[in-house]
Amino acid sequence: MSGFIAVHTGAGNCVDETKYQRVIKEACVRATDILKNGGSAMDACEAAIMRLENCGNTNAGFGSNLCWDGYVQCDASIMNGNNLHFGACTNVTTVKNPIQLARVICEGQERMLSMERIPPMVMAGQGAERYAEEMGCAMIEPSALISSKAKFSYNHYKSKVAKLTKSSSPSAEGAVTPDTSSALDTVGAVCVDSTGNSAAGCSSGGLLLKVPGRVGQAATYGAGCWATDTDAASVATCTTGNGEYLMKTFLAKEICTDLFTTECAVTSLHKTFKTKFLESPFLPAHQDLYGGALSVIYYPKNGGGEVLWSHTTKSFCVGYMSTQQKMPKVGVN
Amino acid sequence: MSGFIAVHTGAGNCVDETKYQRVIKEACVRATDILKNGGSAMDACEAAIMRLENCGNTNAGFGSNLCWDGYVQCDASIMNGNNLHFGACTNVTTVKNPIQLARVICEGQERMLSMERIPPMVMAGQGAERYAEEMGCAMIEPSALISSKAKFSYNHYKSKVAKLTKSSSPSAEGAVTPDTSSALDTVGAVCVDSTGNSAAGCSSGGLLLKVPGRVGQAATYGAGCWATDTDAASVATCTTGNGEYLMKTFLAKEICTDLFTTECAVTSLHKTFKTKFLESPFLPAHQDLYGGALSVIYYPKNGGGEVLWSHTTKSFCVGYMSTQQKMPKVGVN
Repeated sequence: MSGFIAVHTGAGNCVDETKYQRVIKEACVRATDILKNGGSAMDACEAAIMRLENCGNTNAGFGSNLCWDGYVQCDASIMNGNNLHFGACTNVTTVKNPIQLARVICEGQERMLSMERIPPMVMAGQGAERYAEEMGCAMIEPSALISSKAKFSYNHYKSKVAKLTKSSSPSAEGAVTPDTSSALDTVGAVCVDSTGNSAAGCSSGGLLLKVPGRVGQAATYGAGCWATDTDAASVATCTTGNGEYLMKTFLAKEICTDLFTTECAVTSLHKTFKTKFLESPFLPAHQDLYGGALSVIYYPKNGGGEVLWSHTTKSFCVGYMSTQQKMPKVGVN
Repeated sequence: MSGFIAVHTGAGNCVDETKYQRVIKEACVRATDILKNGGSAMDACEAAIMRLENCGNTNAGFGSNLCWDGYVQCDASIMNGNNLHFGACTNVTTVKNPIQLARVICEGQERMLSMERIPPMVMAGQGAERYAEEMGCAMIEPSALISSKAKFSYNHYKSKVAKLTKSSSPSAEGAVTPDTSSALDTVGAVCVDSTGNSAAGCSSGGLLLKVPGRVGQAATYGAGCWATDTDAASVATCTTGNGEYLMKTFLAKEICTDLFTTECAVTSLHKTFKTKFLESPFLPAHQDLYGGALSVIYYPKNGGGEVLWSHTTKSFCVGYMSTQQKMPKVGVN
């Protein structure tokens, strides 16, 4: 079995996604290098997402969309298909790579704390930041996560909302629509390593002008990523799109669950998207529902597998690579 | 159809739970008064939990367990079975009644924000607190959530851990076991109103000496509470116990889903507990798994229904009352 990585930079309605191609390639190469050197799916998944977080162009880590208050608040999560552990952080503003903190929280679940306390699975805000520092994650000033491009978009839309709603509240209601469709470029990765174990992860700054404090799908169990390995198959999925809608439908988990019982992975993915997302009774009936999912399935018995994706947005930028390939494949779909 | 409320003060291993009886009765009476006056299941559920939060004896709101850093951090959530909306807050330290904030977040989902932003479903930390203040929730100083009893327990166990682990870290590992079983007395309520709509809610301060920043089941979609109404039945559930285990198994949601397809509600609840909690592949195999769940099911076609509960802890303190009863029933199970 060779290792395999697939990454995305979000389902969006953007025109120009060529800006992502280089960093997607780099993320794939970095991850496969790790896999070739005996690294685990978790190692490779974390490294790929760190590369996407650091590039400044995606909505994750440095360069994330700004909240209503002008700061970046990041969410990230990772799941280990082998032991089914999950770790997530939300509302972090001083952690350079939120996916690194998610990984630390995930691994922390392997041991009980003193007084038989169960280790946390999801951590938020200042507590999460203190924990990150204590565990040796790279820390930065909140302002160091803000890119000039993100600041520009923020100023542009904030003044627009202020003019039209005459409200300074982050929770102002109304129908001011941005004149360019907002990007949903959360990042994510799915991975299978040489032992057949899978991992999935995601990282997001949330929507532009989000209400500070909002917890998104990238920190929500079942929604942003999912990975499960059985004797029959290893399955991993990461999602992107309208966060609350991914949360309300447990989309990453549902996609994986359905992939385990199907004869045709592609049909299964599209069916899950249709019946459990677009037609979900938990989602508004007369609203655009933007979502995208990237999955990998590996069958240890025959060594075969598939990478597959689905999205309701205009575009979805994906790259993937196995350890046997020299170059990743990148496509704007 | 008459209205109905059921509340609990947690699945625990405590000896004396008589201290809860009075407040459970008061919560039931308050909720049924609201139902009799035409209030909704959401109104009654919120009011019942507010009463339990304010009493000072439960692990919710004032009197909650203290975190490692000596402060109270609260989680709460509520779900409306009628429109399937859910609202939750986590890591809040200045909101007098976390369930009130969860309700406000839940109701906020009925309208889009400006720029077609989807309103938040879960909010954390300082952002959640600023939102609470803006929306008119009762705010207090963090120290005003600390009861002298909680402070005493905190000092007792903190010095014990410090002695035995020689570590000042909240994430210290090791096997120091408290000499009295720690209380898991999260609170919760399930309700059906006179129109047959259901609601479920829960509120928790988390475990004693929890790592600050930890997000618990009471703020996690699918885990702490769930409510769904269909033409066939209205079903609501709230859970309590080891938070991460309830989260990993989506216990509240799973219990409700199974209750919809059963002939015998009690059998279904016990079966869900056994197969999806105690035997879950997502939970450690050689560990005590503490959990409790309180459910209500109402069949609009014949006007009948049931209140039921299950728990793996030694005790589970429950009270319930219909609008046709003069007094609530309270039992330590």
